[in-house]
Amino acid sequence: MREGSEDAPLERREAILVAAAHLISKRGVRGLRVEEVASEAGVSPPLLYYHFASRSGLIRAALEHASEQAPSTALRRSPTGKDGYTAVRAALMAELDDDRAVRENAVVWGEISASAVFEPALRDDVRRVSEEWCANVSEGIRRGTDDGSITIRSEPDEVAQILITLVDGLCARWLSGAIERERARELLGGAIERILR
Amino acid sequence: MREGSEDAPLERREAILVAAAHLISKRGVRGLRVEEVASEAGVSPPLLYYHFASRSGLIRAALEHASEQAPSTALRRSPTGKDGYTAVRAALMAELDDDRAVRENAVVWGEISASAVFEPALRDDVRRVSEEWCANVSEGIRRGTDDGSITIRSEPDEVAQILITLVDGLCARWLSGAIERERARELLGGAIERILR
Repeated sequence: MREGSEDAPLERREAILVAAAHLISKRGVRGLRVEEVASEAGVSPPLLYYHFASRSGLIRAALEHASEQAPSTALRRSPTGKDGYTAVRAALMAELDDDRAVRENAVVWGEISASAVFEPALRDDVRRVSEEWCANVSEGIRRGTDDGSITIRSEPDEVAQILITLVDGLCARWLSGAIERERARELLGGAIERILR
Repeated sequence: MREGSEDAPLERREAILVAAAHLISKRGVRGLRVEEVASEAGVSPPLLYYHFASRSGLIRAALEHASEQAPSTALRRSPTGKDGYTAVRAALMAELDDDRAVRENAVVWGEISASAVFEPALRDDVRRVSEEWCANVSEGIRRGTDDGSITIRSEPDEVAQILITLVDGLCARWLSGAIERERARELLGGAIERILR
C-alpha cells in the first residue's frame, strides 16, 4: 500500500482510477475487487466508497476516465496547425500505440463494454462514452472537409462511426491475439487513407 | 435437465455445445460452470469431460462451434448462382441478424476473444478461428473480382480483414448497447457498398 493520505481529494480520486484501470487491465473487470483497488491506490475502502459510492460507480468512473484519456479528445480542442486529416489520423492511430497507458485504456474500454452485454445498467454509460468519441472524430473530420484535407462521400458522423468501430475492432483483435499490433496499425492506416481521401 | 441419454455420441456432443453457447450468452464465459452446462444439456459431468477433457477444452470447442455456425462458412462452398458481391454482402449482414442463434454466436465469439486478453492459452484458437473467417471472406471477394461484381483497390485478404473487423466491432457495439442493431446494419451495408464497389 502506498501512502496517499496527504494527497488532496482530487489526487486521491485520480489515484483510485489509475489503480482500477491497472487492475482491470491485469485481470478483467469481472474479477475486480474494491478492496484490492483501494489497497493498490493506497487508500482505505471507506475513502474509496466516499468518492465512488459503489463498485458499479467505480466501474462507471473508470470508463469515463478511460474516455477522457483517449487521444481523440485532442480533436475537440482548437486547431493546432495540423490539417484535419493529419489530426484525425494521429488521434486514431494513437489508440494502437505501444504504450502501457494506451494498452490499459484499451483493455478498460473493451472489458467494460463486454460487461455491458450482461449488465444493462452499464449500457447508458457505454453509449454516452461511445457517442462522445464519435462526436470528437466527427469534429476532426468536419475540420478536414473545411480545410480541404478530407474528402468523404457520406456524412461526417457516419464516417466517424465506421472509423471508431474499426479502431475498436482492431484493438479487440490485437488484445485477444487474433492479429499483431503492427498489422492492426497497417490495416488502420490503409483504411483511414481510403476512407478519408 | 433434458433427457439425452438415448442420443448418439455426436448428438450429445452437439447438445453440450448448444448448452454451453446458451449459458455463455446469458452470463458470460467467465461465470461458466461445467456442471451447469452438463445439466442444461441433460448429460452427466463425466460424460461432458469424456467429450471435452476440461473446462478450457469445452470453451475452445464452443469457439470452434460458433465459428462453424458463422454465415461466412457459406462462402467456402461452391457458387450458388449468386455473384460474389451478393454472397459476401449476405454473409456479412447475416452476422447482425435478429435471431437468437446469431446473437448467441456473436456473444460467444465476443466473450471468448475478450477472455483471451487474460488467458494467453486461448489466443492460438482465437487467431485460428479469426484467420478462417478472414479466408472465407477473402474467397468470396476473389469470386466477386473474377465475376466483375467487386472492384477493390487493395488485396482481397486486406479488404477481408477490414470487413470482418467492422462486423466484429459493430457486433460488440450492438451487444453492449452502444448502438442499435438496425443502425449497425445500416452502417455495415453502407461500408460494404463503398469498400467493394
